[in-house]
Amino acid sequence: MNLYAATIPQFKRILQNVERWLDKTTAYAESKKFDPNTLLTARLAPDMFPLLRQIQSTCDQCKLTVARLTAKDPPKHPDTEQTIDELRKRLHSVIAYLDTFTPADFDGAAERLITLPFFPEGKAMTGADYLVERQIPNVYFHTSMLYAILRHNGVDVGKADFIGQVTYKDK
Amino acid sequence: MNLYAATIPQFKRILQNVERWLDKTTAYAESKKFDPNTLLTARLAPDMFPLLRQIQSTCDQCKLTVARLTAKDPPKHPDTEQTIDELRKRLHSVIAYLDTFTPADFDGAAERLITLPFFPEGKAMTGADYLVERQIPNVYFHTSMLYAILRHNGVDVGKADFIGQVTYKDK
Repeated sequence: MNLYAATIPQFKRILQNVERWLDKTTAYAESKKFDPNTLLTARLAPDMFPLLRQIQSTCDQCKLTVARLTAKDPPKHPDTEQTIDELRKRLHSVIAYLDTFTPADFDGAAERLITLPFFPEGKAMTGADYLVERQIPNVYFHTSMLYAILRHNGVDVGKADFIGQVTYKDK
Repeated sequence: MNLYAATIPQFKRILQNVERWLDKTTAYAESKKFDPNTLLTARLAPDMFPLLRQIQSTCDQCKLTVARLTAKDPPKHPDTEQTIDELRKRLHSVIAYLDTFTPADFDGAAERLITLPFFPEGKAMTGADYLVERQIPNVYFHTSMLYAILRHNGVDVGKADFIGQVTYKDK
């Protein structure tokens, strides 16, 4: 499996799923007559990120993973979003960035040694380990926490929304 | 990347991480003088699984993923656990099952067509799509929800506990 197949289509699916959860969030807010942006400060615990930052973090983890695996400079996002509409633009921007990649960009990515400032001194991770052990968990962590915040606050999202549309073949 | 590398070591890491979160849970309960098993009925929303079932589901998703990818019959677990100690045994049992696999068991797994009763009529998924699009999200969904329930109830788990020990190389 080329690391393109393990990242680009699935990260796009995740970001598109998140946008559909936001659709359900605004529909729920409309039905209950509250401003959906009030949910952006909701947290599961006082020392966890609120919804807004969970969405920003999901975007960042997707973006940074593919940038580091392919040794490219990621686009900058200054974390200035304050509304669901602005967060939608952030999601679209990362999806557009993911769309710039081809499988060839990931040639050698599994074996490439990646180093980051917060790794232990003198240590690196292979691209494959970095993806499987650190970044896939990281992406799903933030995605799950933002889903959990919505769910805890009554938004009608379910497991099928979490998984999204999958790829079937004819038998 | 052979699908062994994308599943067995990481699923073991996840199950071992969950056991460490349970260690923190029992330590927290001891410090606050409550029975840690009372948390097993905690939920994030009334129509979500409680902690106990999130742990069982994490075990099941890990077990079923590798069984289906390798076309083997998984061991049965009758969901009779009622305590954290019993859930620890379930985690150990799945880890022992994962330890029975070798990379050769996953030869051809990425291309194998997988069919399940709840798929649309006449449809299948390739092993690679099944893993990336459905099962990795499924495993992290349940793991994240169980983490979120613990975190929401004051257990001192953090992001480093979620990721666990990763594999470093010398630069």
